[in-house]
Amino acid sequence: MDKLYEGKAKIIYPGPEEGVVRVYFKDDATAFNGQKRAQIAGKGAVNNRISAALFRYLEARGVPTHFVRELSEREMLVKQVQIVPLEVIVRNRTAGTFSRRYGVEEGRVLPEPLLEFSYKNDALGDPLIYGEAAIALGLVTDEELSRIRELALRVNGLLRDYFARRGLELVDFKLEFGRLPDGGLVLADEISPDTMRLWEMKTGEKMDKDRFRRDLGGVEEAYQEVLRRVLEAPASA
Amino acid sequence: MDKLYEGKAKIIYPGPEEGVVRVYFKDDATAFNGQKRAQIAGKGAVNNRISAALFRYLEARGVPTHFVRELSEREMLVKQVQIVPLEVIVRNRTAGTFSRRYGVEEGRVLPEPLLEFSYKNDALGDPLIYGEAAIALGLVTDEELSRIRELALRVNGLLRDYFARRGLELVDFKLEFGRLPDGGLVLADEISPDTMRLWEMKTGEKMDKDRFRRDLGGVEEAYQEVLRRVLEAPASA
Repeated sequence: MDKLYEGKAKIIYPGPEEGVVRVYFKDDATAFNGQKRAQIAGKGAVNNRISAALFRYLEARGVPTHFVRELSEREMLVKQVQIVPLEVIVRNRTAGTFSRRYGVEEGRVLPEPLLEFSYKNDALGDPLIYGEAAIALGLVTDEELSRIRELALRVNGLLRDYFARRGLELVDFKLEFGRLPDGGLVLADEISPDTMRLWEMKTGEKMDKDRFRRDLGGVEEAYQEVLRRVLEAPASA
Repeated sequence: MDKLYEGKAKIIYPGPEEGVVRVYFKDDATAFNGQKRAQIAGKGAVNNRISAALFRYLEARGVPTHFVRELSEREMLVKQVQIVPLEVIVRNRTAGTFSRRYGVEEGRVLPEPLLEFSYKNDALGDPLIYGEAAIALGLVTDEELSRIRELALRVNGLLRDYFARRGLELVDFKLEFGRLPDGGLVLADEISPDTMRLWEMKTGEKMDKDRFRRDLGGVEEAYQEVLRRVLEAPASA
């Protein structure tokens, strides 16, 4: 079937009816704006299942998402949206790009969660952008940005709790939002170890894409372990 | 006499008494984080005189500055301060780094003045930083940042008026702030065609360091022309 869009980690196909599309999760992994590429065996299936579980968890707690239902091991059905061209990053500790950009060690706890936006534009290298600048450039409206801030911080609180109950610390993560035909905003894209930093609480071990980015080994095992903890579903989740 | 500090465009020497230092303005010009270097004949004298005039103008309108008095053609006496490690950029139109970073044409009028901060750190390339991140990293306090925002926007309003009366449009500019021993914040560094973009209102011609950055020729003449207009002092200024 004809692809509607192919990204680095997912392919979007037309859905069975108007207004929905099928997302296929690939095993392809890229890092550093596409400079590093490889396959992580089973990643597509893991990310599909983790994303589905997290979208369900968030929807049940009042966060609107694009998720409709799982279709297969590697596929989910989602509402068709127009993606807001901003990566929304929430940071609880310093790490990754933030640490490199400002020359600070990883792991410093931030006094409060820090929200950052980057302009989704591969040719420009997804540059950091102020909310005001994103509005001025017409990437997002003032009202949308307020709503995105509110939802991103709420998602952070919910996901921190969720992972803490599973022995994992949510260090930072990236969200994307989409516009429905009626103008409403929903959480879109995926939420997985590709888009979050998760540190094992007891050992400090990295349980996310940093294992791939930094050649730490045990990449597949870390993804599987996160899935295992997501599926073990403690009573309180 | 022993230098206290030598930067790209200025040298700081001890002052005649405690609490003040002497600033010597060099003809040296650098661009693109020091990758392009040259001399602009007479620039030091022009920038000293323009900065002095602007600091006097702003002080008279309630903006505290480090300026004490002119000492010679190329030297001014200023209060000794501890520089806040942020470049404070105010943009009225898109240009320069902003246009390159986001792939937008130069000259687009911003719906309101846009305030940006960059972390003053040559090794890191002076990266853009959110105010919240600057606070989290201890570069500035919450109270200082509020005061800096307020002063920077006030300076923008005052300087736009000032240059408009002289047939020049203030496109953007960079400010630095310093802490006095009592903790008070003052406008520091310099305000000159090295640190502002000024466009001739009738012709659109660039009257600032972009003539050097972009090899447009007539660099010395543009600096001298800005000085001439600053010194012509319309009754209302």
